[in-house]
Amino acid sequence: MKRTEIASLGEFGLIDHLTKNIELKNSSSEKGVGDDAAVLSYGNKKTLVTTDLLLEGIHFDLMYVPLKHLGYKSAIVNFSDIYAMNGQPKQVTVSLGISKRFSVEDLELFYDGLALACQEYGVDLVGGDTSASLTGLAISITCLGEGEEGKIVYRNGAKETDLVCVSGDLGAAFMGLQLLEREKAVYDGKKDFQPDFTGKEYLLERQLKPEARKDIVKFLAEEGVVPTSMIDISDGLSSELKHICKQSNVGCHIYEERLPIDYQTAMMAEQFNMNVTTVAMNGGEDYELLFTVPLFMHDKVSKIKGVHVIGHITKDGNGFILETRDGAEIEIKAQGWDSIGEE
Amino acid sequence: MKRTEIASLGEFGLIDHLTKNIELKNSSSEKGVGDDAAVLSYGNKKTLVTTDLLLEGIHFDLMYVPLKHLGYKSAIVNFSDIYAMNGQPKQVTVSLGISKRFSVEDLELFYDGLALACQEYGVDLVGGDTSASLTGLAISITCLGEGEEGKIVYRNGAKETDLVCVSGDLGAAFMGLQLLEREKAVYDGKKDFQPDFTGKEYLLERQLKPEARKDIVKFLAEEGVVPTSMIDISDGLSSELKHICKQSNVGCHIYEERLPIDYQTAMMAEQFNMNVTTVAMNGGEDYELLFTVPLFMHDKVSKIKGVHVIGHITKDGNGFILETRDGAEIEIKAQGWDSIGEE
Repeated sequence: MKRTEIASLGEFGLIDHLTKNIELKNSSSEKGVGDDAAVLSYGNKKTLVTTDLLLEGIHFDLMYVPLKHLGYKSAIVNFSDIYAMNGQPKQVTVSLGISKRFSVEDLELFYDGLALACQEYGVDLVGGDTSASLTGLAISITCLGEGEEGKIVYRNGAKETDLVCVSGDLGAAFMGLQLLEREKAVYDGKKDFQPDFTGKEYLLERQLKPEARKDIVKFLAEEGVVPTSMIDISDGLSSELKHICKQSNVGCHIYEERLPIDYQTAMMAEQFNMNVTTVAMNGGEDYELLFTVPLFMHDKVSKIKGVHVIGHITKDGNGFILETRDGAEIEIKAQGWDSIGEE
Repeated sequence: MKRTEIASLGEFGLIDHLTKNIELKNSSSEKGVGDDAAVLSYGNKKTLVTTDLLLEGIHFDLMYVPLKHLGYKSAIVNFSDIYAMNGQPKQVTVSLGISKRFSVEDLELFYDGLALACQEYGVDLVGGDTSASLTGLAISITCLGEGEEGKIVYRNGAKETDLVCVSGDLGAAFMGLQLLEREKAVYDGKKDFQPDFTGKEYLLERQLKPEARKDIVKFLAEEGVVPTSMIDISDGLSSELKHICKQSNVGCHIYEERLPIDYQTAMMAEQFNMNVTTVAMNGGEDYELLFTVPLFMHDKVSKIKGVHVIGHITKDGNGFILETRDGAEIEIKAQGWDSIGEE
């Protein structure tokens, strides 16, 4: 593959090169890349803003994450935060810190992935910036979106008897990561090594090319459902449940048998000798939506494809309870992904 | 000094701790730290957004930059980008990537500096996030601001015969950096080393605690002046002049004798055997405003304290000219700070 040294373009040349084909499509994007700041116009809509800093070795491993996938996923995790507010992502800015080992072509791949995610979700890239990094790749992404007055959903509105709902299935992205880590350990520099991923494509896809649940936000709107609280599952169901319960001053009661788990996740957990419920409760990076709705909306949410009612909200002080298949009630512990906590 | 390990608080505990005293003051800040995204309301104003990624070893050296100053400066450089659009910064989000060598107290210092800058410039901190970093400190800052329809100033509006204006003085931040680097080299681990900064306080302050030119934006508004183009000087005057000229399809003619230079900058350049004009043209991080106004506004801009008319805009193709004190015309080369270009 062709390798163009980044230094041959310089900082401004590089960002011009990477952003030259970008067209703005949203009417709220007035001015994109190329000035001191982007200019947006949200009229009477609310502006939502979320930001993420992704660092090599902590949030991703370039040993098995292709740069195009990384670009795609970096955008998706931010879009997901905007959907979790019941909003629509509209603009994204990206800053990269890059070391000398990257070529212009490497960064083109990253931008290809980013552009693909933007295209699929109707988001404009309005700001880009690159600088040197002494060590690994650093990616800073900020996403802006719009929300409608009265329809923005926070984490703090869950009420007693509300239904706890989750989209999609849980734990697959975590098992995908375990699988990649295992193959990386087996590989260990061997020539002609071919990792064995047969029958595990879903797990890999969930880890390497996650999607944000734009569709669920749309279905909810079509059904006239505004959740009482919502959050996206990035650090694991247990951790996100606790955020909602703590901020809403309530407890929750979740049923183990109702946790949505794909058969590949279950099989892989079996192979790894892991408890699949623990995987579903604590595996991160699913980017599914966890939300609560009033009890009377049961029929409305049940008919939304991909939404599962997994429990209900209880009074404050009743704890965070997981009812197991055999009827035992155990306290949910958040063992979600926390990059800086005690191990 | 007390040292509290970050791991003792965990990721969520840490960010709660660092942001617990933050109050939102701007009416456009509806919801700050603590949800998937912040919620802002700009009504009929335009939203401006700018973002920066600052990496240890590239953008700052913790050997001589105190963490509180770093927090302050990280905010200021982003506010400066919003002022350069003729806007007002209103909200800021910060993400930190931190290694184990930092304590909770270290991060409190960083946040103290950030909070001080926010207070002095009337900006709300609406999003915060921390994660681990395997290597150095990584700081990602996004600033949002508001601009008024028709009064936002881009880089591309400079016209032939427009006056080229600059605020404050140039090159001091660069000389401050040279001074710090020299003392660092002299120090080299010596015990009881006392760096000698007497008479050079202004240079240090310009490097370590820069300010953004909120006052100039206010004065311009009071005088009813909307510049035809504007940019902030982060990479050096030459580089910023070229951005304006290229995007406006014009040339420029600058007079060496009109470049505003503080006497400390001049003395320090003399000591370092550097050409002071080169320092003023290419030294970065001044965070002054460079802007153009129509010729007939000469009297209006001249009476604004701290604004200097340094030249005028010429026809496209006439080049970027610096007229020296002895009347020679030389082509301006942008040697501004470019972290990834060829050396």
